[in-house]
Amino acid sequence: MSTYETGKALSEQVNPGMEDALRARYGHLVPTLAEGVVDWAYGRHYADETLPLRERYIATIAALTAQGTIPQLKVNIGGARKAGLSREEIAAVIWQMALYGGMPAAINGLNAALEVFAAEDAA
Amino acid sequence: MSTYETGKALSEQVNPGMEDALRARYGHLVPTLAEGVVDWAYGRHYADETLPLRERYIATIAALTAQGTIPQLKVNIGGARKAGLSREEIAAVIWQMALYGGMPAAINGLNAALEVFAAEDAA
Amino acid sequence: MSTYETGKALSEQVNPGMEDALRARYGHLVPTLAEGVVDWAYGRHYADETLPLRERYIATIAALTAQGTIPQLKVNIGGARKAGLSREEIAAVIWQMALYGGMPAAINGLNAALEVFAAEDAA
Amino acid sequence: MSTYETGKALSEQVNPGMEDALRARYGHLVPTLAEGVVDWAYGRHYADETLPLRERYIATIAALTAQGTIPQLKVNIGGARKAGLSREEIAAVIWQMALYGGMPAAINGLNAALEVFAAEDAA
Amino acid sequence: MSTYETGKALSEQVNPGMEDALRARYGHLVPTLAEGVVDWAYGRHYADETLPLRERYIATIAALTAQGTIPQLKVNIGGARKAGLSREEIAAVIWQMALYGGMPAAINGLNAALEVFAAEDAA
Amino acid sequence: MSTYETGKALSEQVNPGMEDALRARYGHLVPTLAEGVVDWAYGRHYADETLPLRERYIATIAALTAQGTIPQLKVNIGGARKAGLSREEIAAVIWQMALYGGMPAAINGLNAALEVFAAEDAA
Repeated sequence: MSTYETGKALSEQVNPGMEDALRARYGHLVPTLAEGVVDWAYGRHYADETLPLRERYIATIAALTAQGTIPQLKVNIGGARKAGLSREEIAAVIWQMALYGGMPAAINGLNAALEVFAAEDAA
Repeated sequence: MSTYETGKALSEQVNPGMEDALRARYGHLVPTLAEGVVDWAYGRHYADETLPLRERYIATIAALTAQGTIPQLKVNIGGARKAGLSREEIAAVIWQMALYGGMPAAINGLNAALEVFAAEDAA
Repeated sequence: MSTYETGKALSEQVNPGMEDALRARYGHLVPTLAEGVVDWAYGRHYADETLPLRERYIATIAALTAQGTIPQLKVNIGGARKAGLSREEIAAVIWQMALYGGMPAAINGLNAALEVFAAEDAA
Repeated sequence: MSTYETGKALSEQVNPGMEDALRARYGHLVPTLAEGVVDWAYGRHYADETLPLRERYIATIAALTAQGTIPQLKVNIGGARKAGLSREEIAAVIWQMALYGGMPAAINGLNAALEVFAAEDAA
Repeated sequence: MSTYETGKALSEQVNPGMEDALRARYGHLVPTLAEGVVDWAYGRHYADETLPLRERYIATIAALTAQGTIPQLKVNIGGARKAGLSREEIAAVIWQMALYGGMPAAINGLNAALEVFAAEDAA
Repeated sequence: MSTYETGKALSEQVNPGMEDALRARYGHLVPTLAEGVVDWAYGRHYADETLPLRERYIATIAALTAQGTIPQLKVNIGGARKAGLSREEIAAVIWQMALYGGMPAAINGLNAALEVFAAEDAA
């Protein structure tokens, strides 16, 4: 199975319809973007079984919190929930980033988590 | 047990002599630094049992790789080894950061890991 | 007096009700967060008398402007005003960051300051 | 011709009224800001003919995407369009930043571009 | 031709032996890394003809200067030279980053360029 | 007096010979760099009297610590010493950045300060 196919299987599982949504939004500007995200992010990183998905999401949430990249942090908090992390565990990863990205970055990350959790409760 | 005491117990386990070393190096400039690191970083974050130590190190390695903070990345790769992560698992966390901190940050992180692993082999 | 108690006294002075507000918002996810902020940020940094509060706020505004961390920049501009900095002094710190964080970061910081000052005028 | 005068000529061409707008908004806080932007950014960088304007905008869009500085990214995408870059070329610069600033930064940059292009279509 | 094959052709042209060197250095830790770099960085970005190679290097040098990622900045300054940029043009891109990444980042970038140019002269 | 002349007077006072040194090192690549640094950094920022030089250095040290820009941090710690800051005050600014840039950034900043102070003692 190619890395694209492996990535497609995983992305459809954790984020159904993602490739089509990316193509619809960005395809007229960057025709290869949608396939590239599936192949590179999902096929070559997330689907690699050296680490369980749970731990890959911990790494991602840590990095995005430290960087302050809020929109994708929210998406990946959603993914982490599907991969089995509890709300408290996600919050602990984010709060730990007070040590590395600074206290404001950690607070902003927790605010993003609160939004995701509120949307879960409203669903 | 106070957060300082909890942190002291953990820091002596994963990083023996750390508080004394910090005090010897920085104490004349910032007298409260050494105790503050033990209390804040170890007592209030790493010793918190919401996440196992293994997963806290994954979060830390991810953030430090994405930020390109190499000296502390090396220290924490050492800590991650003591917390049970294999070399391949550590490398997978670092390489995943190509998605978030960029490919150069991930390569620089792997170079740091290679140095730590070479020092292990030489020990 | 413990660092927590020192921090509590200061935080209630510059930011009344902060610990309770943090606990109400984040306490169900990170039970130790509110006390940790008081102890670490206020007790161990802001309350340390090596630097006057005025100069600690200058340092904070500089860093948050360079990093582009806007929500906390606004909070700390408010704190700086209480610590005696004039609007022009705050603006000078922010604009100086054009040298270090780049011109866009400085402009975004000034926009944050304009919002804080407008809220002052409206109060 | 002074660097201010060279910068003024260029800024009026690519961004008419900019100096006056800056002075109106920020002049009461930082009286020298507006003239400084014209002199430093336009007179000493953009007007320098070592690189054509098209290539200066490529450099700027790359940096602002990698940094995630969205408001100024939008302004400079507008400038890049006036300097002759096609939508697809701008998108290619932004998407390339997935390699350096990470995939989220590139996606956020493309979202900024979509907003600028939609405003063009609505004009 | 697959994106890997396209990328391989380009990487061998601008950076001969790169895939083998990456595999020799990192392959025992991340077996898929070398092929991934060829496919993703070269096949899916640099080889894409929406932008000429010259302009892709301008974007890369801008981003790496603003981020302060010096080792890869040097590599890409070398690539930019092969893609036809003059020393003065490369320096102009780097110096422009004083506007976006700050003056220190630009100076550090120029120092990296001076090292690359000195190595050229010594070759 | 022009901003260049004001900046020249100040730069010769705090950093004698700087413009000539910049011209000697970078002038063949960026002919306008040396004059630009004097005019922009010294003439338009440091010489502006809205803030005393002491406080401008506090802002600079804070930002450079948070960003991890070590070479220029050392230069500016030297400048801060000339502007009257004690070693303990400089260390307090740097350590405060544990709150904003993270603990590793603060430790790396203190290491830079230790180097500068050791050089003072050796002088």
